[in-house]
Amino acid sequence: MVFDPSSLSYDANGLIPVVAQDHATGEVLMVAWMNKDAVMLTLATGKVTYWSRSRAAFWVKGETSGHTQRLMDLRIDCDRDCLLVLVEQVGPACHTNRKSCFYTALRDGAEVELTAPIA
Amino acid sequence: MVFDPSSLSYDANGLIPVVAQDHATGEVLMVAWMNKDAVMLTLATGKVTYWSRSRAAFWVKGETSGHTQRLMDLRIDCDRDCLLVLVEQVGPACHTNRKSCFYTALRDGAEVELTAPIA
Repeated sequence: MVFDPSSLSYDANGLIPVVAQDHATGEVLMVAWMNKDAVMLTLATGKVTYWSRSRAAFWVKGETSGHTQRLMDLRIDCDRDCLLVLVEQVGPACHTNRKSCFYTALRDGAEVELTAPIA
Repeated sequence: MVFDPSSLSYDANGLIPVVAQDHATGEVLMVAWMNKDAVMLTLATGKVTYWSRSRAAFWVKGETSGHTQRLMDLRIDCDRDCLLVLVEQVGPACHTNRKSCFYTALRDGAEVELTAPIA
């Protein structure tokens, strides 16, 4: 079946959540959002491109920081309302300069930071 | 810092997206949603409990199917608007009887199913 980005289930704002996972290590790096055009741009360019909700603009990941995500594979979930992108992550994915945005864990009811920013 | 579920950033519907990942294999299993009470229930019981948007009710994963998710670790992202739960998944996570909901991939612009339902 030929893939049609219009066939995905977008929310009321025209967005779909996207999980980015390191294709080599399996580490979950971040979650962000795409609209239909961002899905099409990501597929056309191979550069993972989100929709920035705060800036209301396309967000070619790493365009300014250099911390790009090259698309290795794109997966669609059973309800077609979420995407998983397997990426080759250059440098840290997180704006705090950590590999993953999910660096805070709970231990005995308290928050602990698992990783420090990359020097 | 003691964790306060109220400190998370919920959307206009009071929900936060949650990525469930197999703690042993790193496979991304599904994405669903929690509200504040579902976060508290998940932590209190160790049984991953979502908020079903379609049923507008708590959804103790696997309560009817037996395909439970035992919480092994909970991670918070940098913006505090997304969670990652590392789980021990019993049986398939997907309602289609596949381990992961992300069983559809794109190959040369077409959708292909990577896995079949578990017999």
